[in-house]
Parts: sequence; C-alpha cells; structure tokens
Amino acid sequence: MLRGGSRLIMGLTSKPALASRTTMRAVSSAVLMGGEESHPTSDYTKVLRYDSIAHAVKNAEYAVRGEIPIRAEQLKATLRKTPDALPFKKVIHCNIGNPQELNQKPITYLRQVMALVEYPDLLAPENRDWLTQKFPIDVIERAESYIKSGLTSAGAYTHSQGLPFVRENVAQFISERDGFPAEPENIFLTNGASGGVQMLCQIICAHPKAGIMIPIPQYPLYSATMSMVNGIGVPYYLNEEDGWSMSVAELKKSLSNAELLGVDVRAMVIINPGNPTGQCLTEQNIREIIDFCHREHIVLMADEVYQTNIYNDKLPFHSFRKVLKSMGPKYDDVELISFHSTSKGFIGECGKRGGYFEVTGILDEVKNEIYKAASIQLCSNVTGQIATDIMVRPPREGESSYKQYCQERDNIISSLQRRAQMLVNAFNQLEGVTCNPSEGAMYAFPRIRLPKKAIMAARKDGHQPDAFYCLKMLERTGVCTVPGSGFRQANGTFHFRATFLPPEKEFPEFVKLINDFHEEFMNEYRD
Amino acid sequence: MLRGGSRLIMGLTSKPALASRTTMRAVSSAVLMGGEESHPTSDYTKVLRYDSIAHAVKNAEYAVRGEIPIRAEQLKATLRKTPDALPFKKVIHCNIGNPQELNQKPITYLRQVMALVEYPDLLAPENRDWLTQKFPIDVIERAESYIKSGLTSAGAYTHSQGLPFVRENVAQFISERDGFPAEPENIFLTNGASGGVQMLCQIICAHPKAGIMIPIPQYPLYSATMSMVNGIGVPYYLNEEDGWSMSVAELKKSLSNAELLGVDVRAMVIINPGNPTGQCLTEQNIREIIDFCHREHIVLMADEVYQTNIYNDKLPFHSFRKVLKSMGPKYDDVELISFHSTSKGFIGECGKRGGYFEVTGILDEVKNEIYKAASIQLCSNVTGQIATDIMVRPPREGESSYKQYCQERDNIISSLQRRAQMLVNAFNQLEGVTCNPSEGAMYAFPRIRLPKKAIMAARKDGHQPDAFYCLKMLERTGVCTVPGSGFRQANGTFHFRATFLPPEKEFPEFVKLINDFHEEFMNEYRD
Repeated sequence: MLRGGSRLIMGLTSKPALASRTTMRAVSSAVLMGGEESHPTSDYTKVLRYDSIAHAVKNAEYAVRGEIPIRAEQLKATLRKTPDALPFKKVIHCNIGNPQELNQKPITYLRQVMALVEYPDLLAPENRDWLTQKFPIDVIERAESYIKSGLTSAGAYTHSQGLPFVRENVAQFISERDGFPAEPENIFLTNGASGGVQMLCQIICAHPKAGIMIPIPQYPLYSATMSMVNGIGVPYYLNEEDGWSMSVAELKKSLSNAELLGVDVRAMVIINPGNPTGQCLTEQNIREIIDFCHREHIVLMADEVYQTNIYNDKLPFHSFRKVLKSMGPKYDDVELISFHSTSKGFIGECGKRGGYFEVTGILDEVKNEIYKAASIQLCSNVTGQIATDIMVRPPREGESSYKQYCQERDNIISSLQRRAQMLVNAFNQLEGVTCNPSEGAMYAFPRIRLPKKAIMAARKDGHQPDAFYCLKMLERTGVCTVPGSGFRQANGTFHFRATFLPPEKEFPEFVKLINDFHEEFMNEYRD
Repeated sequence: MLRGGSRLIMGLTSKPALASRTTMRAVSSAVLMGGEESHPTSDYTKVLRYDSIAHAVKNAEYAVRGEIPIRAEQLKATLRKTPDALPFKKVIHCNIGNPQELNQKPITYLRQVMALVEYPDLLAPENRDWLTQKFPIDVIERAESYIKSGLTSAGAYTHSQGLPFVRENVAQFISERDGFPAEPENIFLTNGASGGVQMLCQIICAHPKAGIMIPIPQYPLYSATMSMVNGIGVPYYLNEEDGWSMSVAELKKSLSNAELLGVDVRAMVIINPGNPTGQCLTEQNIREIIDFCHREHIVLMADEVYQTNIYNDKLPFHSFRKVLKSMGPKYDDVELISFHSTSKGFIGECGKRGGYFEVTGILDEVKNEIYKAASIQLCSNVTGQIATDIMVRPPREGESSYKQYCQERDNIISSLQRRAQMLVNAFNQLEGVTCNPSEGAMYAFPRIRLPKKAIMAARKDGHQPDAFYCLKMLERTGVCTVPGSGFRQANGTFHFRATFLPPEKEFPEFVKLINDFHEEFMNEYRD
C-alpha cells in the first residue's frame, strides 16, 4: 500500500490501516496484512507466519533488491541452464551501484595492501626479496605501518568505534578536506554507510510519532529503515523541473504538514550528491538548509557517500560539515551526522562493507549511547576498516604507487563522467522521456510518460506502471533497473533508475538495447 | 536497574518504572531516565539528549564492552604515555573471546587464500613461478576456484543471502556434520552471528509483549538485543550445582511464570556449548528441549558458535538440527534457527565478522521477509563470507596444506583444553571460589562468595559487588574480566567471566596474578 508514494506521510498511513484490518477480521487477516494478497496459505501449526511476525519488517520495502532484481536472478539461473532460452545472453545489473560486479577493476594499491594485511607472514625479512618483485615499496611500508599502529591482526575484534589509528586518519582526512579540525572521538567506523544509518535512526526515533524528513525521490534505505525502527518518514520533494533542486519553501511546507499531523520531526536526511537523482547541491543551498535546520531544531543527516563521484566542475562537492563550520558560532549548536562509505566513489569497494559516520555538535551523553549500540555488534569488519583507511589516506605524491593510483582514479572518474552523459543523452532522445543531467553519483533517473494503454496493462498485471515498464525491459533485454515507485516520486509521475556502470566499451550496445526496447514498448502501448 | 538480574522478567520491569518516572516529573526526568543519575547536564538546545533518545537503546546493556573494558582502555592509554604509571605493564583482555588479540596465530591456509582473493592479479599465469615459491598449490587452486564459482570480486555486493556457492558449501558441511541433507536456500550469511541474532529477534518480536526465553547466565547479546527490539527476555536458570545443566522442569516454570504475566513466549535461545558457562549439552538433554519446544509451540534459536571448542571427549557436540532430524516426522513442524560464526572455534577470526544462520522448518513466507530484511543491509561483508567458506571447507586429506592445517588446528584445540583446565583448577583453589569445568567454549565462570565487608564497600562505591571485584582486579593486575551481573545470575550469587585465551606460555604468570589479587582482596575485605 506504500508503493505508489501517493500518501503524504509514509508510515503514519500504513499503521492505522493495518490496525483496522486486524480488528475487522481475526484469522483471515493473515491474507490481508500489509496490503499483500500473496500469503493465503499461512500454516497455523507454526509460530512464525506472515501474519505473526513484526509489521516493522513486513512494512519495509527495498526495491533496489526487490521484485525486479529477484526476477533477474531467476533469469540468470535460466541462462546458466539454457544459454539460448531468452532473447538476451546476459543480465546487465543496472539496479544497484555495484561497479566491481560490472568489471570495474579495484584500485591496485588498495588490494595490494589488503593482501599483505590478510597474510602478514609475507612481510617477514626472509620474504623481502621475493615480495619486492611484485609489490611496490610503499605498499609494503603501509602494511607494516598498520602492524606498528596497533593492528594485532585483521582477525581480532577492534575497539567498537573502530581501530583508533583509522579514526585518527579519518579525522585528518576530514580536517584537510574541510579546513576545520576533526576529532577521532567523533568518528564511528561502520559496515558500509547503511549500518550507521540504521543505528542512528533507531536512536533518533524514540517514539512512534518521531519523524525524519526524507527526500522524494530517495534512496530506499531510508524509507525501509524508518519502517524497521517504527518511525515516520516525512517526505520533502525535490524539484524535477529545476534539476532536482531543493528549496527551503518546500522543506517548510513538508515540516508544517507533518506537524499538523502530530509528527515530532527530529531529523532530516540529505543525499548529496543525490541518489537516485544525481544532483549536486551548491554551497548557498547547503547554507540555507543548515539555517532551516538550525531554526527548526532539526538534526541533519548528510549522506555524502558519493562525494568523489562529481562530474561537473562547476558543481564541486561541499560537505555539510565544512559549510556549517564556516557559518560561525551562531550555528555551533547544530547537530550533524555525516556518512561516508568505501562502496562508492571511484574505489567502489561495496563488498568490503567499509564506512564511517562523523558526529558534529552531538552531546557526549548521546555519543555514549551510540558507542554502546555499536558495541553490541562488537565492531565493524576489520577489512572494511582498513579499506576505509586507504580510502582516506591514498598514496601521496612521491610514493611509488602514486602515479598508478592517480591514473586509475582519473580513468574511472572520467569514464563515469562520459558514461553519465551518454546515458542521460540517450534517455533524452526517447519518446516521452526526459532526464536531468547526472552531475554526481552513479545513476540516471529519467521520467517516462507512459501511455494510458500501458498504465491500464500494468494495473491489470498487478504492477505499478513504472514497475511494469522495468519488468518488460528486463524480460526483453536483460537490463535490470529499478522503478521510480521504489524510490517514491511525485504523484502521477513515473521514473526508473539505471546506473551508468556497464563497461564503457559495451555502452553503445547497452544504449541500443534500451533504445530498441523503448521503441518496441511504445509501439505496443501507444494510445 | 536491570543490573542485578534480581527481577524475573527482564524488560517488563524496566518499562513501567520508566513510565511512572516520566509521569512524575517533567523536565527533571532527564536525570532519572533509565535509572541513571549520571546525566544531569542535558543541554536543552539539542534535539538529541539522553532524555530524548530511544529507551530501547538506553535500556540495553552490554557488559562485555561495558564499564570495566572501557576502564581498561583508559588504563592502556595511561600505559602508552607512562609505562611505569601502574602496578602492571600491560592490560590482559580476558573480557572477550578475541583469540587473535591475544596473539593466537591465524590458520595459515585461511589467510593465504584470503590474500589471493584480495589481490587476484597474483594468480595471473606470468606470476605462477613466483607465487608457488610461497603459496601451496591447493591455496592457489582454492582462490582460483572462487573466481570460477562466480566471485566477480571481493569488492562487489553479493546476493543478499550471501554468495550462492558459499551457501552450497555451508549446506554440504551441515549435511556431512549431521547426516541429514541441508539446502543452500535455508542459509543466510551474516556479519558474525550477532548480525543474524539481531535481525531474527526483530522479526520474532512482533509486539511489546512478545518474549524470547534466555538462559541465565547468558551471553549479553541476547538481553541487549531484546531491549533493542522492544521484546521481553524471559529468563530460565541453568543449574550451577549440576554443572550448569538445563532441566525441562525449569523451562516449564520459566514459561508459566512468563505467561502468568501476559508474555507471549515465542522463542527460546540455547547456547551450546554454553557462554559464559562452558557446559556441553547431552543428546538426551537436547531431545528433551526439542520435545518441550514442540509441545509448547516455541521457536528454537540454537547458538552453536562454539561447536568446535569441545574439551571433553565424553561430551561431543550435537547440533540441535541433527537431533531434531533424528526424532522423526512427528517433529517436522519444529521451527529451528541455528547460528554459527567464524569468530570462535579454533580459527578465531573475530575481525572478519563472518557467520551464518540456517533455518529449519521455517515457512517460505517468513523466509521471504528475512531475505528482505537482509537485503536492506545489501549483504554481509565478502571477506567474512569467504572466511565462512574456508571454515566449512578446510583442506582435505591429500591436499598440500592438509598436514599444516591439522597441526595448527590440533595445537590450538589442545592448548585451549589445557588452558581451560589450568584456569578452572586455579579458580577452585581460591578462598570462597568454586568453578564448574569448562567443557566447551572459551570461558570460565567462577562463583565468588564475597565477604559482607566487600559487598558493603561495593554498594558504597556504586557498583554491583562482582563488578567491584572485577574493577579491583583490573586496577591492580591489568586482568580485564566481566562481572557475572553483566550476564545475569541467580539472585544473591556473584560470578565473573574470564576467557582462558592468554598465551599458554604466559599462563603461570597470569594465574599467579589472579591468585595474588584474590588473596589480597580477601585480606582486605574478609569479615
């Protein structure tokens, strides 16, 4: 029932609906709960049934790994058995920002260091001659420095906030990036950014009417997490007509709408560069947003995992922290939590599940509770912690790996830039499709104007119209995308998200697949 | 207020207490919430204050990383600055089962394979001669097999349940261990076992009166998680007089007590081998427990992370799954979730955060929701997934690493066995201390009979008596343990948990430290 994004306050609407249904029907409620009709055969000999498990989990939706990607896995299984069974030879996963799955090569320096961290026996003096044949000296020194800095083993639990020396290096990175000093005590290393987002949303959502403002369109981690923590996701809309810009007027409107409904709005998520929308906020815009949160007493949650995925020189990345610090002492009481990850950027180490968040202006008494919540999970994985260290402390000029590192970095970024442009251009050529430029991140989010006939066919098929479109695209071309309904979108509009991560040399073919599909689809359903 | 374990139903008691306090006082409730008096300076310009964040998080306690380990970190910082400042030269971390932190060497085969998985360029044909100088051929072949099996890169997100081939190998391992076939579809790879426990408790605890039975003493992950998911931890007591045995009579008593209080008991946690108690359940005992859960309609959560930490030949490990499957079709509807981890056993790869859970007798409609919850976190870290694969699929007889692997494994296990015995014997020599044998796991859990004078001094100091004892031990010897109150314990009894993980050659010195401290403590506080 949350699928269309047509109701204003996510979460609030779903619960009364569930409650009344539960009251209306006793046993047969099993088949109706959560608005799903697909569980008619609950086995009442079991304790755990669809109708008996936590609503918070059932209500969560995560389209990035939802129906269409699950269908893609089935098609892949079919192709493994019978390579000629389908109109395509392979599935192209554009549903998720997972660059290495699409053959982006890892940064050599990072993986060389990791190999030595995994098997430090190679660093023994008797192996030195052998080792230096294949490993640059700065790689060897970096791995040795980890052991000297207190990494007993990549197989030991660390401090629950993460290895102290990694947090020092993260603080140093932030200080240099922003020009304002950062402290290791304010850094928490996490399993990807997602781990931190979930923990903090749980801490912030202290009661069932606590709300967090979330952009529409959004990355569905946020709506799913709000459901999981029994909080209310309060939508604010990005303006598609103005390049997905963010206006304070819209924030005000969203806030007062929520407050009218009794929501205690405590925090606001901002994704910059945007996901799925790819926009980059200007410094001026960030300043206005901070001022709004300061006035309205709202915690800022800045998702900045795409901070190095920047493709327009005129729109460089500005961290919320830097802008906040530059606004002077009047804004010292602003509470800000900033997220970063090893999964994105040009390193794209998704599988490492590395990341961190930094807290600014958060009371010690709250940091202590964050620490405790982190300690229950013991610590984030050490490989991810080391990957985070390398992300924030790459080879420096003069070191032996520096040149190769720069080449790899620049090649990836410039190729992403070209691919972003190619994909956006391709979308803008399609009948009834418009697409804002992708100035950052890894995605294009085109708007598709679907004919009434297609909308009718979709409804008959039990799908949102854009999900219907994406499913047809998958079934006919193998290209796996995510419908805009999975990210929520303005009422009556339809979109989909596609990464521009397929390898550059396969791009013409990839674009042609989409192009041909769209033409065929329109021919079939044009009114 | 939950510290003493003196109240029967954990969770239930804390909430009314909080509510009444909140009602009694408006603003000044800030300093009382959660029974803590340590937050008198809440800053009301902030959104996030101790009094404004989620109770579920504040109520959680996790002593394994609580006050005493936090104090240990402070002492370590002191020693780093001034090595002679304290009566000891180093802190010995016996608070947590973290073998590699205490210099247990990783299994060579595992780390060699991991190094090649991290940096697969080394597998290129032109590197073969160089590589075979230091890497056995079966290590090289294993790393190559991962790439052939579909591991695009250790830097790519995987299927949200984990890499398909790893799940196949886990299923194969379980099939061989139990003699009953297992299915990859029922395996979920997780960040350690903890990640899975938290996710499943959230799914199971569908409403505020949903409860899960938890052993006393318990590993505090369970009580902390029950608080985090707003469920009720229902205690059942292990019988210390009978080697921490588990009786069905006690389970019945615990269940009916909880039901009288309106708790909907949905599941039961069993830790076998026991943590912190080290006992190993007999097959007969497991059968009785399964029969109880079958009759009472209770989901079994079997924490079996110590399944290879077995030190008594007469008490081998029996998985709940094997015993269940051997009990015939009458028990087919039992719902069982079994947890395993790379952190424990003889491999002790805690920092990898690898693990899995297997579901048995769980409906597909519920598995779908588990999958969705897993997908919101995208996937567990890939390094941990590969470590899990190696754990369940070590070198086989005839392979080049087999001999070394067996030697390393046997050395670690037999040393742990000797150390367990040494520590337990040492405790049993101390005045007023008794300690059951550690037949499994990594811990001794001695009972200490503290003099009244010590109990008075502890109360005056604001500590539980056993926490007072552990704190004194830490301050005087550097040995960091966890008080029994952190695990909960029978009313009026005091214990502490110590790992027997310090290196064997340092054991005599370690034992002497504890011995001397105890004597000194008793001399000071003897009535």
